[in-house]
Amino acid sequence: MKIKRPTLLVDESKVRKNIREMKAKADKSDVIFRPHFKTHHSADIGEWFRQEGIHQITCSSVSMASYFARHGWKDITIAFPYNPLEFEEINKLAGSITLNIVLESKESLINVIRQVIAPLNIFLKIDLGTHRTGLDPENESLISAILNFDFEQHRLMGLLGHAGHSYQKITPQKALSIFEESKLILNTLKRLSSRKLILSYGDTPTCSLLHEFQAVDELRPGNFAFYDVMQHSFGVCEMEDIAVCLACPVVAVHPGRNEAVIYGGGVHLSKDHIIIENQKCFGTVVDLKEFGWAPEAKAHLSRLSQEHGIIFGSKSYISSLKVGDIVGILPIHSCLTADLQGYYVTLEGTLLGKQNRNSNLL
Amino acid sequence: MKIKRPTLLVDESKVRKNIREMKAKADKSDVIFRPHFKTHHSADIGEWFRQEGIHQITCSSVSMASYFARHGWKDITIAFPYNPLEFEEINKLAGSITLNIVLESKESLINVIRQVIAPLNIFLKIDLGTHRTGLDPENESLISAILNFDFEQHRLMGLLGHAGHSYQKITPQKALSIFEESKLILNTLKRLSSRKLILSYGDTPTCSLLHEFQAVDELRPGNFAFYDVMQHSFGVCEMEDIAVCLACPVVAVHPGRNEAVIYGGGVHLSKDHIIIENQKCFGTVVDLKEFGWAPEAKAHLSRLSQEHGIIFGSKSYISSLKVGDIVGILPIHSCLTADLQGYYVTLEGTLLGKQNRNSNLL
Repeated sequence: MKIKRPTLLVDESKVRKNIREMKAKADKSDVIFRPHFKTHHSADIGEWFRQEGIHQITCSSVSMASYFARHGWKDITIAFPYNPLEFEEINKLAGSITLNIVLESKESLINVIRQVIAPLNIFLKIDLGTHRTGLDPENESLISAILNFDFEQHRLMGLLGHAGHSYQKITPQKALSIFEESKLILNTLKRLSSRKLILSYGDTPTCSLLHEFQAVDELRPGNFAFYDVMQHSFGVCEMEDIAVCLACPVVAVHPGRNEAVIYGGGVHLSKDHIIIENQKCFGTVVDLKEFGWAPEAKAHLSRLSQEHGIIFGSKSYISSLKVGDIVGILPIHSCLTADLQGYYVTLEGTLLGKQNRNSNLL
Repeated sequence: MKIKRPTLLVDESKVRKNIREMKAKADKSDVIFRPHFKTHHSADIGEWFRQEGIHQITCSSVSMASYFARHGWKDITIAFPYNPLEFEEINKLAGSITLNIVLESKESLINVIRQVIAPLNIFLKIDLGTHRTGLDPENESLISAILNFDFEQHRLMGLLGHAGHSYQKITPQKALSIFEESKLILNTLKRLSSRKLILSYGDTPTCSLLHEFQAVDELRPGNFAFYDVMQHSFGVCEMEDIAVCLACPVVAVHPGRNEAVIYGGGVHLSKDHIIIENQKCFGTVVDLKEFGWAPEAKAHLSRLSQEHGIIFGSKSYISSLKVGDIVGILPIHSCLTADLQGYYVTLEGTLLGKQNRNSNLL
């Protein structure tokens, strides 16, 4: 396929390797592997997971879960607080697949019992220290009251946590301490119920850096399938592990200020960035090869507007570029970059479809 | 329409007022008004401009220009450097409408002459001080050489500049000084050609704050149609002028830390933010009313992940929220927020279509 515009390339062999490695770790610890599909939102890429024996997945919205259900996934967890305004869609979905939802208050549990007729599997969301959402683990009386509530036609499945505070510069030691804390919180709360509860845990940094997960029952990392420059900056992956790259045409070259302009802006990459040496970095520039890209950084994206990206690099690199060239941009946050795309292109030129968030909202 | 998910509301009367006011200024100065449609990318909202007598528009990509051409727009400027990889699409478009393109090097001009058969109107992009792209105005010998090139079947139309450095905290005095500098640059360079050249200028801050534009020939602001919290923070508009608001369901409330969680994240609003009192702000929380929203800030979005937004506010405000409520978020950057949506909903409940960037790329 001839590239003319910002186009997200996916290196299938890297994605498959990333999946296999994580799956092998989950298998070794004998825990359920329920990867988060919000990173790729692609039925085609989902098949690569299925071919590795994965049949349970995580999504971040009802529409994403509906999309994957339409593509044959039969056991989906929506790892987002229950939205009572979408009860009809949830009811419908729960009537056709095994649907696991996440609650984090008694009010939400009452909403679910009142609104949803089809049986649901319910996880209680526990705040593991990220303080985004979830029940405060110190509030054992509330958690105990919810755990021992009458769930009626629904089933209490377990406790679910996301250690989002692992998204920082991290070492295996630090990852281990986050996992140990999470394990302690979840296992302590588990004893508040007489039922057998599944402990569901997951985030790419700790799941990537650690190897033993016996203390929980389920892992839900997502980003690991693609990784990105942010995960690399945290010390979670190697540059070689990053499996997606936005191919962008060069449209202007300004050697006088060591800059070039690409067709590739905030609407293609998202505005997520990291700070390197006090400078914003919106992506890492790499050379595209016939089959893939060289992982060595040649320059970085220093500014992004709606459609323009500004590359800053050495004088020799910038002078080597000309209008009409195509450069590769390794994204800062692959999940958000992928969300902005209509499709992927493999290195062999195959087009892969993905959910278009805006096509099924009505 | 019942709102269940993040939904972009548009206040038609505000948009129409914003359009009318800017159009009246352009008319008073007797300059062409060629608004940038990258803010709304909506054929339906485009009709509101048409009803005010506007027939010349600006776009930021070939696909956006193709979309508006399909919706009856016959005179379009693509204010983005010529991308030689899209020459076929440009050729096709130039065969059916008046297409104005922007060049900023001799190499690109040679590419155009070599690649595009259908006649094009050509503007030279001049760097007015933003240093994103454009010819350096000090390099008069290069600009003169390009201006006096043989354009063959194409037509040299004029000089185009974008004072992107006005996107900052700005006063009418500062806006005037940016406009005066730009005017001087453009009028000085105009004398390098014996042909009559159009001077095209435009950015929302200076166009909003100033009233006299006789020194140029054309204005191309875009954001003014919606405005946003960033423009308000620059001092460019009033909160009352902001014409779009993302309606978001509340999915969790955490009064203990003065926070609530909404369904509305980076995939709905973009990660653009401003800094207020050393804190990131990803959007301003307002109350939704039966017909519109109260412009008074109640709280702000302090964090955004892929689908979650975290509202931080006073204890009394947070405690007043409950799961299932819908709050309004005035976006930081309305252009990027609108890009992420599949449609708009007016306050009367009418659905307005927009370009889906991903639907016509192949």
